[in-house]
Amino acid sequence: MAAPSEFLKFVDTNADGFIQRLADAVAIPSISGDASHRSDVVKMAKWLENHLKAVGVETQLVDLGKHKMDGEELDLPPAILGRIGNDPKKKTVLVYGHFDVQPASKSDGWDTEPFTLKIHEDGRLIGRGSSDDKGPVLGWLNVLQYHFQNKKELPVNLRCCFEGMEESGSEGLDDLVKKESQPGGWFDGVDCVCISDNYWLNTRTPALTYGLRGLTYFKVTVSGPGRDLHSGVFGRTVHEPMTDLIILMSKLVDGSGKILIPGVDEMVAPPTNSERSIYEGLNYSIADVEESAGASIALSANKVDVLMGRMRYPSLSLHGIEGAFSGVGAKTVIPAKVGGKFSIRLVPPQTPDTVNPLVISYLESEFAKLNSKNKLTIESLHGGKPWVADVNHWNFEAAKAATRSIYKQEPDLTREGGSIPVTLTFAESLGVNVLLLPMGRGDDGAHLLIS
Amino acid sequence: MAAPSEFLKFVDTNADGFIQRLADAVAIPSISGDASHRSDVVKMAKWLENHLKAVGVETQLVDLGKHKMDGEELDLPPAILGRIGNDPKKKTVLVYGHFDVQPASKSDGWDTEPFTLKIHEDGRLIGRGSSDDKGPVLGWLNVLQYHFQNKKELPVNLRCCFEGMEESGSEGLDDLVKKESQPGGWFDGVDCVCISDNYWLNTRTPALTYGLRGLTYFKVTVSGPGRDLHSGVFGRTVHEPMTDLIILMSKLVDGSGKILIPGVDEMVAPPTNSERSIYEGLNYSIADVEESAGASIALSANKVDVLMGRMRYPSLSLHGIEGAFSGVGAKTVIPAKVGGKFSIRLVPPQTPDTVNPLVISYLESEFAKLNSKNKLTIESLHGGKPWVADVNHWNFEAAKAATRSIYKQEPDLTREGGSIPVTLTFAESLGVNVLLLPMGRGDDGAHLLIS
Repeated sequence: MAAPSEFLKFVDTNADGFIQRLADAVAIPSISGDASHRSDVVKMAKWLENHLKAVGVETQLVDLGKHKMDGEELDLPPAILGRIGNDPKKKTVLVYGHFDVQPASKSDGWDTEPFTLKIHEDGRLIGRGSSDDKGPVLGWLNVLQYHFQNKKELPVNLRCCFEGMEESGSEGLDDLVKKESQPGGWFDGVDCVCISDNYWLNTRTPALTYGLRGLTYFKVTVSGPGRDLHSGVFGRTVHEPMTDLIILMSKLVDGSGKILIPGVDEMVAPPTNSERSIYEGLNYSIADVEESAGASIALSANKVDVLMGRMRYPSLSLHGIEGAFSGVGAKTVIPAKVGGKFSIRLVPPQTPDTVNPLVISYLESEFAKLNSKNKLTIESLHGGKPWVADVNHWNFEAAKAATRSIYKQEPDLTREGGSIPVTLTFAESLGVNVLLLPMGRGDDGAHLLIS
Repeated sequence: MAAPSEFLKFVDTNADGFIQRLADAVAIPSISGDASHRSDVVKMAKWLENHLKAVGVETQLVDLGKHKMDGEELDLPPAILGRIGNDPKKKTVLVYGHFDVQPASKSDGWDTEPFTLKIHEDGRLIGRGSSDDKGPVLGWLNVLQYHFQNKKELPVNLRCCFEGMEESGSEGLDDLVKKESQPGGWFDGVDCVCISDNYWLNTRTPALTYGLRGLTYFKVTVSGPGRDLHSGVFGRTVHEPMTDLIILMSKLVDGSGKILIPGVDEMVAPPTNSERSIYEGLNYSIADVEESAGASIALSANKVDVLMGRMRYPSLSLHGIEGAFSGVGAKTVIPAKVGGKFSIRLVPPQTPDTVNPLVISYLESEFAKLNSKNKLTIESLHGGKPWVADVNHWNFEAAKAATRSIYKQEPDLTREGGSIPVTLTFAESLGVNVLLLPMGRGDDGAHLLIS
């Protein structure tokens, strides 16, 4: 089904107004991670609520309580709940987005003033929040404006949930989602969720995203001496914690990315042919990954292997060591206590609960082989479950049809290597299909210097 | 030969005066590493020169020029050269010591005011510099005072070299030693050197030290990505520099202290039976090493193995990683460029020149095995040669006899695991036997909280 020409004409006619509205939103520096900008986040919430009301949305600003940041107690910015329609014959769609942004300043390297929306000569709109995530939120507003001004009924019942703390851990949101998912709550009766807060794989092909990796993060500490020791006096005399730790860390992952902890890679089923064909069909190349990494360092020359490494296999990265010498220069210390940090990105059916025991027992048995008199401590610092949705659900079918009608091409079906925790909150609280519908392109530079 | 009773009586009679003189020296905070105390180092030089003159030493304060510290250009404190006697029938002995100290303050954890000498109830004299190295320097002064006041001729010609920059890299001293070692120089005709600036193994047995380990310090850098990467997006997609570096570092030394770089351990001959018997004879226990390390982490239950590990074998310590995540908490970064730091303590016949090529070629071949697309860079940050003296030389025989006559026991013959670079300067510039004659005990806490 092609998009109604009346709608396309409305968009073209109103483009300048849509861009001006985005410019107005970008101009509010709603930086959730900076206490001095907290009033701007509240201002942004009120601005957005008024624009939603203006296109016929029933709204509510929800007080999420207080939190501590940098030792200061602050009011959390309110979340916005919205509602249009209650027709039992229609599906009810919940839309999520956020109106807070990351910090940005010209001194970080921006070519333009980050809080002034600029139209680049190639047509891109550049400014903090233009893509993450004010632009996508305003995309919904533009569609609602068409229906409202032309007195067109929406084909679905709509619920909105827009928050102002996404860039600072979505504080307060989990409780709100759980509460409103109860019978009688604002999200009661929701049939599916749509979240627009990620990106296409490239700059050419629209994408629908159906999976996210989870995470389990470890700190492995080896300690022994009562204090840091002089390597001249103690070298080859005592069990050195760094020697033990480096040996342990070297046994976690090999140079090709294979996880060496028995049972971890093995938990994940090999891809079926039909799944493999999804990766083969993605409009993506090794050059794309190497361009974004800034060097020719892809693990394989095979695009399917590289994409599956990112999207459907677990990965283990070594991040660093706490307590070792980390400065410039040449210090000859034997550190007394060193904590190695690593994390594993998880994919279904892996969860922190099923993977952590394998990690702990492997580390303990490898440490035992060292016959060291040092002491081993293993801490799980944090974790989160992975998520995969059914791409054949009507929610995805509807999004595929919409993509075809606007872009005249099939969307890439992608999984993200990272996490968007709110996705799991919605999926688990509501028990319905969640669709990630990215509106930003692969070069939008979320958290970076252009959007 | 027992010490002359007349001398022993002089010491007992003058003990209070000797202690008061040490208290006067400790009270001058001659901290060479703190620009604001530079005038105190100069004051200490003049104080010491006057005391040397008062016991008949011909002296000269030598201007060592200027240097930069913390961006400030400063006059180096003068060195003191001293001379008594020029009898061609006597041996000429050069004595070295230093009159500068490490910083110290009560806020560092001192129980007493560090620049006020305190007599502990067990008889120990506690104060900064009391053992490192004002005490030993004043030991020479006490002996000279006996000879001067009693008009006793010294049995040797004496030369002194006392410096005020030892705790700050002995800046300026190398050039002075080399110059004065030339024909006609202040050290021309010196037959042996005696340095009192190290420690007994324990608190029970006097020691003579005949060896020091050298050092070669490396930074091994693995780089790849153009910038730090997000492990969600890039994990299992690219060659991660940390993975490569940790594998390389794990191949350098095993948990028992054995160096895995082919050829390095092998350069050192196994101990002869007579050498082994030196270690067997040392008054030292595993409990001693574990007490000073603060934990029961000795590599062996065999005292000879532990002592040889410190004194006569090379050792390899892993110090840390520059560029990796080193803070507290859980950052999920893939660092773009990481530099592993490690050093090898060297023993004869090893030198940086002979060991470094083995290290570099091994690292390169191990890195090649990884088939990584990352880049490896190996830097030698600094190095120094080891030193061993002949313990049967008359210089050592004289020191053994002196030890017997005062302490009524044989001295431990020790090697130090660390470096005292000026030792090598004297040995190489003068080409004579150098003896390290420690006056401090193993629990004196050099650079720490008591001396």
